[in-house]
Amino acid sequence: MTSVVIIGTGNVARHFFDVFHASDQIDVIQIAGRNKRALSYFKDRVNIAQDFEKLLAADIYMLAVADEAIGPLGEKLSDHSGLIVHTSGSTPIGVLPNNSSRGVFYPLQTFSQEIEVDFSKVPICIEAETEMDYKTLEEMASAIHSQYYRVSSEQRLHLHTAAVFVNNFTNHLYHVGYTLCERQGLSKELLKPLIAETVHKLEYMTPMEAQTGPARRGDLTTINKQINLMDQPLYKDIYDSISKSIQATYAEEL
Amino acid sequence: MTSVVIIGTGNVARHFFDVFHASDQIDVIQIAGRNKRALSYFKDRVNIAQDFEKLLAADIYMLAVADEAIGPLGEKLSDHSGLIVHTSGSTPIGVLPNNSSRGVFYPLQTFSQEIEVDFSKVPICIEAETEMDYKTLEEMASAIHSQYYRVSSEQRLHLHTAAVFVNNFTNHLYHVGYTLCERQGLSKELLKPLIAETVHKLEYMTPMEAQTGPARRGDLTTINKQINLMDQPLYKDIYDSISKSIQATYAEEL
Repeated sequence: MTSVVIIGTGNVARHFFDVFHASDQIDVIQIAGRNKRALSYFKDRVNIAQDFEKLLAADIYMLAVADEAIGPLGEKLSDHSGLIVHTSGSTPIGVLPNNSSRGVFYPLQTFSQEIEVDFSKVPICIEAETEMDYKTLEEMASAIHSQYYRVSSEQRLHLHTAAVFVNNFTNHLYHVGYTLCERQGLSKELLKPLIAETVHKLEYMTPMEAQTGPARRGDLTTINKQINLMDQPLYKDIYDSISKSIQATYAEEL
Repeated sequence: MTSVVIIGTGNVARHFFDVFHASDQIDVIQIAGRNKRALSYFKDRVNIAQDFEKLLAADIYMLAVADEAIGPLGEKLSDHSGLIVHTSGSTPIGVLPNNSSRGVFYPLQTFSQEIEVDFSKVPICIEAETEMDYKTLEEMASAIHSQYYRVSSEQRLHLHTAAVFVNNFTNHLYHVGYTLCERQGLSKELLKPLIAETVHKLEYMTPMEAQTGPARRGDLTTINKQINLMDQPLYKDIYDSISKSIQATYAEEL
């Protein structure tokens, strides 16, 4: 049984708490956080601490906090003998105290506050400095039925950037699509089957193969017509930058 | 039973042929096209014609051809008394001969050559100039179990632009994400659950609500770190244009 203290009370902390709580191989013994109201979410289920001087002894200290808080809070943990891990995509392992055992346990997924997370669909990116620590984190990932991958700090930075493209940016394109429909009095339901099929195609072809549309065909007439149609300069810029990148990607076939 | 002549032998023509063929309310009586090899796909199942002077009399002539061919081919049909429709997203109804009954039957979906299409997941955008013609096209959409929507030429232009954002552009962002992973020796499988969840969220919230990430938080440190990390100028431009649009969308909350 691995004992864990979670530091943080946000989205990621909550979802890890819930899934660890449901596992019979992980024992969350304490949650620590400065936000009293957020802490109260946990109070009937586990020991809570607002004072970081009062942390219990544990195998793992998990820092599920904002990126800029990882370094300062890590310092406060350096007297403890447990493995200190953070959960951030864009923070190197090196910000954790270098006199401690340290690691990273980064869940590559988007979490919503109210929606239960199925951790079998959350790849965990693991980094550690010894094989023993790696093994410990691997077991923690297995205990919650997650796929896990060995990812270095350098790789994780790039991976987080890739995640911004396929999640944050894609979501904004949905917003743009919905907005263009709404302004024409068209139901956004019209777009949903197309959105679903765009993802579904990834099961049987690469995005490189799946690409269609005016930019791939080099159809400048349609590209210009569509750019001129929009009255939002920021949407025009998006249209222009992605079209240019698609055209460059397929330049040799045009 | 509605009789249909399909003009065109590409992807859209094939998928409509297959689904009409399976319907007991639609009778495809002929396929016409200039490409002999493509025509041969249909030859054992229906009358084929390479010569547009030899088209049969039908209730509906469906032009499933490249945008720029719609006008010229439409002219060749103007002696026939049937309803002439095209299937294009960005072509106005007005390019069809104005002395004919004319309409649009635009399937808002991405088709792959080899994959069978489930038309219950293909919204059909219908335009016609008389209620009788609209009704005819509505019945044709119903016969293939498609949802249908009344969409004007002006609306369809905007809708097609929206489709480019949520399908073509989203697909390119997947390509960018995959590329960033591959260059770091990381499996693209890592990204797939995130891609799936990004779409899944649309079932219970709008993209406006679902937006997360550095641009929404106004986290310029992460934004700059990620832009500088990439060595592809075109990817930097995409990152920059979408981040600016997200920041503007949420400007009031920062």
